[in-house]
Amino acid sequence: MNRKSVSIVGWEPLKQYVKEIFVRMGMGSDDAETTASVLIWASLRGVDSHGVQLIPWYVEAVDIGHMKLKPNIAIEKETPASALIDADHAFGPVVTTFAMRLVMEKARSVGIGWAYIRKTNHQGAIGYYPLMAAKKDMAGIAWSCGQTTTAPYGSKFPGIANNPIAMAVPANRHRPLILDMATSVAAVSKLHVAKDRGVKIPEDWALDKDGNSTTDPWKAAILKPIGGPKGSGLSIMLECLTSIMVDFPKLETVLQGKEKPFGLESVIGNPELIRRHIQNSTLIAIDIGNFTDVNRYKEHIDQLIDGLKSLPRAGGFDEILVPGELEERTFDDRFRSGIPIPKKTASNLRCVGEKLGIHPPGDL
Amino acid sequence: MNRKSVSIVGWEPLKQYVKEIFVRMGMGSDDAETTASVLIWASLRGVDSHGVQLIPWYVEAVDIGHMKLKPNIAIEKETPASALIDADHAFGPVVTTFAMRLVMEKARSVGIGWAYIRKTNHQGAIGYYPLMAAKKDMAGIAWSCGQTTTAPYGSKFPGIANNPIAMAVPANRHRPLILDMATSVAAVSKLHVAKDRGVKIPEDWALDKDGNSTTDPWKAAILKPIGGPKGSGLSIMLECLTSIMVDFPKLETVLQGKEKPFGLESVIGNPELIRRHIQNSTLIAIDIGNFTDVNRYKEHIDQLIDGLKSLPRAGGFDEILVPGELEERTFDDRFRSGIPIPKKTASNLRCVGEKLGIHPPGDL
Repeated sequence: MNRKSVSIVGWEPLKQYVKEIFVRMGMGSDDAETTASVLIWASLRGVDSHGVQLIPWYVEAVDIGHMKLKPNIAIEKETPASALIDADHAFGPVVTTFAMRLVMEKARSVGIGWAYIRKTNHQGAIGYYPLMAAKKDMAGIAWSCGQTTTAPYGSKFPGIANNPIAMAVPANRHRPLILDMATSVAAVSKLHVAKDRGVKIPEDWALDKDGNSTTDPWKAAILKPIGGPKGSGLSIMLECLTSIMVDFPKLETVLQGKEKPFGLESVIGNPELIRRHIQNSTLIAIDIGNFTDVNRYKEHIDQLIDGLKSLPRAGGFDEILVPGELEERTFDDRFRSGIPIPKKTASNLRCVGEKLGIHPPGDL
Repeated sequence: MNRKSVSIVGWEPLKQYVKEIFVRMGMGSDDAETTASVLIWASLRGVDSHGVQLIPWYVEAVDIGHMKLKPNIAIEKETPASALIDADHAFGPVVTTFAMRLVMEKARSVGIGWAYIRKTNHQGAIGYYPLMAAKKDMAGIAWSCGQTTTAPYGSKFPGIANNPIAMAVPANRHRPLILDMATSVAAVSKLHVAKDRGVKIPEDWALDKDGNSTTDPWKAAILKPIGGPKGSGLSIMLECLTSIMVDFPKLETVLQGKEKPFGLESVIGNPELIRRHIQNSTLIAIDIGNFTDVNRYKEHIDQLIDGLKSLPRAGGFDEILVPGELEERTFDDRFRSGIPIPKKTASNLRCVGEKLGIHPPGDL
């Protein structure tokens, strides 16, 4: 298998392997199951940047004492509708699923649940959490406020984050709609894809380290926000609504010149960046049944999806895709046929297992 | 004054005149004060599309029985954190300030307040409502789900709305930050500005009626979403989170071909469009003091603003502006020197007053 550029690995043995990695490291079985589920979900959906390739980062973060296998997650403030959760350096998937379950309980009771997480580690693909709500007949929303990677509108300096926002709602005949988007024009993973393929990137994606527009993915060092002042403003407001609300501003030290911007470099093998990579997050659940009839709701979502897909297409489009549809197709394909793991990622994953004395799946 | 292209009118006499128009029509004094405040606020901030030029529309909507001067606004469902409000054809500013006050009360009690308004009329500039929260040491969020004006990503047909979203947070030394953005690349008002100036529009703003890109503002008939699939997805999800949640889908009949798309034409003088112009809205308040120290919060917002403004500027920019800053400058200027009212708008406003037997301000 090593001579091919990718290994194709069945999702079930891969998930079992990932779970076992975290269990052997000392994580509780439930938390390891959660973390593996979040990572495999992203890999199944083709969001490889947020899938199993993250594992070496997570492992290194544990090794340097940054991410905790047995954190003391604490609800610091709570009302029937809201909560402020301190993550205590938990794995992102562990504290974020905890928070999502909490807001879903609150929503079931008072219609809406709203939680802040202070200082969570990397959360995987953030769309996972609103989907938890959608699977229980709720609408879910999540956003995160992270590292300085992006130039605000009018600047050539990476003073803001490309904070992602995700939303999901349930349908009846169709899959849930899932929007999961960064507030930058392109996600970092798209830059990596362009590098791998040796192609240029569009001029509106990124700036080089000096703040000049570049079409060379290797020179891209600073992201640009979607829609100029709009994406920029949205990212800034999410920082205000979240990081400053939990008294852990993410941009301030960089804006004041006390710390270098975070940038787009890989954190793996860079303990300083791993330690700095910590974020705040907002989780929201809305109980559909509190406001309207759930079945009627889901039928309307079906109608919406059918209607959108049947619209006249723009030139160059074979099909109109609704939020999440492309990823769900990849999910189906990989669920059946296995997840393609690039050679380097496969080697990294085997290496992690070897150190822990775990046998990798045969195809890895 | 008529020979000049604009009249400059002091905001106080203008507001008094606007209020008097609605009082004479039969609206209660408080509701007229609210409606006048919302309209004058937009005019002061330079958001003329959402200011006093709307009055002939509102008056016509009352005349044809679509907007009610004395509506029976009803809270249909309520919990300590949430509410579903039926607007009963109230003026948008009346029901939306009512909803915002309600969510602020709820936030004061349980940290967060979340309200849906079903079937509100035009709400004026939506940034007004989050600002109400910011003035009381809360964070505010509002969005609205309206008419089909925009082509979803992949389509050339106006099957979605350019739903606006607004957020505001308080600062200490600085003004509150206010983001108020449509999910289309350009607001409709920017097309009007381009027409007035006889200039071309950028290629990514709009399509003509046949769905082809156009740089001619007179041919622009369909808006394009910001960031392609992102703005498109965001607008679709807001419909799911709001219109479908209150069982009043806004897109469905158009998507099913049962109704023509709404489009970008002026509603004034078009009773059919006036009757169709009705929307749903979400209002959210977050009580800062429930989660962190309010003074500390506002100091961090100040630091954020100072930091952003001091970043290295991109080429072509004299200054980095934070969300709402440009509009606040116009506000200061117009607050001191008066609001410029285009000749046609001035004539329309005088005409409305004449019919009601009210004397317009001398400068109008």
